[in-house]
Amino acid sequence: MATPAPRTAASETGDPLLLTPGPLTTAKSVKEVMVHDWGSRDATFLRINREVLEGLPKVVNGEGDYVTVPMQGSGTFAVEAMLTTFVPPKGKCLVLINGAYGHRAKKILDIAGRKTVVYETAEDTPPDLAKVEAILKRTPSITHVFAVHCETTSGILNPVHEIGELAQRYGKTYLVDSMSAFGALPLDVRRAHVAAVAASSNKCIEGVPGLGFVVARKADLAATEGNATTLVLDLHDQWRNFEKTGQYRFTPPIHVIVSFHQALTEFWAEGGQPGRGGRYAANCRTLVEGMRALGFETLLPDDLQAPIIVTFHMPTDRRFVFQSFYDKLKDRGFVIYPGKLTVADSFRIGCIGRLNTDHMNQALDAVREVLAELGVASASPKKAA
Amino acid sequence: MATPAPRTAASETGDPLLLTPGPLTTAKSVKEVMVHDWGSRDATFLRINREVLEGLPKVVNGEGDYVTVPMQGSGTFAVEAMLTTFVPPKGKCLVLINGAYGHRAKKILDIAGRKTVVYETAEDTPPDLAKVEAILKRTPSITHVFAVHCETTSGILNPVHEIGELAQRYGKTYLVDSMSAFGALPLDVRRAHVAAVAASSNKCIEGVPGLGFVVARKADLAATEGNATTLVLDLHDQWRNFEKTGQYRFTPPIHVIVSFHQALTEFWAEGGQPGRGGRYAANCRTLVEGMRALGFETLLPDDLQAPIIVTFHMPTDRRFVFQSFYDKLKDRGFVIYPGKLTVADSFRIGCIGRLNTDHMNQALDAVREVLAELGVASASPKKAA
Ligand SMILES: Cc1ncc(COP(=O)(O)O)c(C=O)c1O
Ligand SMILES: Cc1ncc(COP(=O)(O)O)c(C=O)c1O
Repeated sequence: MATPAPRTAASETGDPLLLTPGPLTTAKSVKEVMVHDWGSRDATFLRINREVLEGLPKVVNGEGDYVTVPMQGSGTFAVEAMLTTFVPPKGKCLVLINGAYGHRAKKILDIAGRKTVVYETAEDTPPDLAKVEAILKRTPSITHVFAVHCETTSGILNPVHEIGELAQRYGKTYLVDSMSAFGALPLDVRRAHVAAVAASSNKCIEGVPGLGFVVARKADLAATEGNATTLVLDLHDQWRNFEKTGQYRFTPPIHVIVSFHQALTEFWAEGGQPGRGGRYAANCRTLVEGMRALGFETLLPDDLQAPIIVTFHMPTDRRFVFQSFYDKLKDRGFVIYPGKLTVADSFRIGCIGRLNTDHMNQALDAVREVLAELGVASASPKKAA
Repeated sequence: MATPAPRTAASETGDPLLLTPGPLTTAKSVKEVMVHDWGSRDATFLRINREVLEGLPKVVNGEGDYVTVPMQGSGTFAVEAMLTTFVPPKGKCLVLINGAYGHRAKKILDIAGRKTVVYETAEDTPPDLAKVEAILKRTPSITHVFAVHCETTSGILNPVHEIGELAQRYGKTYLVDSMSAFGALPLDVRRAHVAAVAASSNKCIEGVPGLGFVVARKADLAATEGNATTLVLDLHDQWRNFEKTGQYRFTPPIHVIVSFHQALTEFWAEGGQPGRGGRYAANCRTLVEGMRALGFETLLPDDLQAPIIVTFHMPTDRRFVFQSFYDKLKDRGFVIYPGKLTVADSFRIGCIGRLNTDHMNQALDAVREVLAELGVASASPKKAA
């Protein structure tokens, strides 16, 4: 049997398209600005950096009361910096868990010796708000509440605004990991009473990896002095140093930041969060409809699915070998992602990054071809009768 | 009076030449490789990353017994990771200080609650080895010794091999910050009995900033399990994860790493440490002789001066205004660096990065022109009679 020549996807730089939770496919223009040298005290760089820091609170309606504190490293560095700077050694944090990133926050707090209370739900289930309220009511020693916005493990959207209302009602400081959602899903830090929210350069703002950041309410951040138990992850100290000198305490990833600035410029040009989120929602609809037409089933019902990354159940047809499926898609220029669920055999396809519905349709064509090549008649996860 | 048109220095990308302690002027080829997208599990990226990790121990004669553990962030992230992973909560570290980076190590250990013993000398004075030995002899509770290779505050070369001999003789674990020296100055981790040495991507290997790393003796690293008091800065956990999966625990700064790989390739092509260090030594000689001819004086005598960065005393001529001197050099395409000394009014000029003696001579021409423009007759720091 003659195999049809694989059609390969075209990114601007000839690289495979990344249908993953990030690092993502980014614009060529976002990467090209890195082909320069800057000193870390260079006036141009300092202006670029200031514009980045000033722009990020606007993404979540935080202008004025909120400030951005960047954190070299990755998103987890920002999350650890946020948790260990905000939750004091004598604090106690309610951690809402329905996936790997909730578990990671709990682990960070455990290692740092901060007390926690955990409320965990299944990976396809958001927290029950009545239960959250009951916990807050019966545990006055809780000082902080932590939630994940889009839990990238499954792609589920958690009710971050409603959780924030409860945190506010019970006088708790509210911390959010919005890594995979920041800039794509609506988040109003005032309405949600968020004290601090962590994200990174290489997700929905579509920059390259190397910088995490926390958008924090100044009044709350000011109260964290002396909480941190490290030098480099001390958000308060990092913030104070910017206030004093306009500079990083330690060498910044200059090229990553200049690239992030270009990515933010393009983000605003696309219409900010509504524009960016709209494109991703269209990507997600195209993907889910197309995959369902091929027999695939999503883990989540549509009302819990964030338009970020979609978890699909693994087909049961024995001819569907995930590694072959993955490799053949890669050969055609599409990189998908393994599953991370503990409960079900699955894989994931992302809708974020420099991708539009044309790319999603090309990806669906490739999936169709690969299924045919593998001889898979139905991609259904249901056992054939 | 007609001012001669300033001659501007030519870097490959039209940027000013950075005569600083880093981030540095890098090759255009080192930056151009960043104009691509890679997934963090991409096979090409994982190979590139493995080659980086495998290459670094060779720079310091550590092949076989030593392993590289990278740390997202900056050099200080690597230093804090090294100190808090190696020095256990019940350890005690002798910190040798003769500048800001020694002080920073002490601060990191203080914040982490690790006990220290400090032996501090002036910024122009290396530690007295007899005194180091006396401290080790009379303080058996010391478990670790920390030293800075080239203390970038002044540019002084510390006797890292001799300190290591003493640490070994008294059974102490030896930790080195070789940030500004790694790849340029000879360091033999076996002969110096180094357990771990920290450095970063954007110094003498001439990559872009965004990655720190620690080259550690496997036997010592294996014994650090459970010491760390953070998740992200736990070198042992980072190492074990590489051993298990070949991957980072948290999103790596992919573009920075790919660029670092290119920088390492060019480093080996230049003849490794002897080649790189030879070029820097020639830069340093050219700079120091040229500046002395203009009346400037170095802080350090030549035998203590590392060919990395040179501290010059500020001229006393009242027409010498440092900000004007700095700005006029910048206009001509040369970025120098303020002083960081606590003891004397000074400034610094670096010899590292993608620079050769032609560049240094161009910089000296610019200094001469600027002095003339400022009307400074002698750049001597001696008070005129
Ligand atoms: C919700 C969430 N939190 C945290 C992280 C960790 O970010 P990083 O891998 O940049 O450390 C991720 C990464 O995908 C994420 O999706
Ligand atoms: C000796 C030494 N240690 C540590 C550092 C800190 O490195 P970074 O600024 O990358 O955090 C530097 C930076 O110049 C240094 O020279």
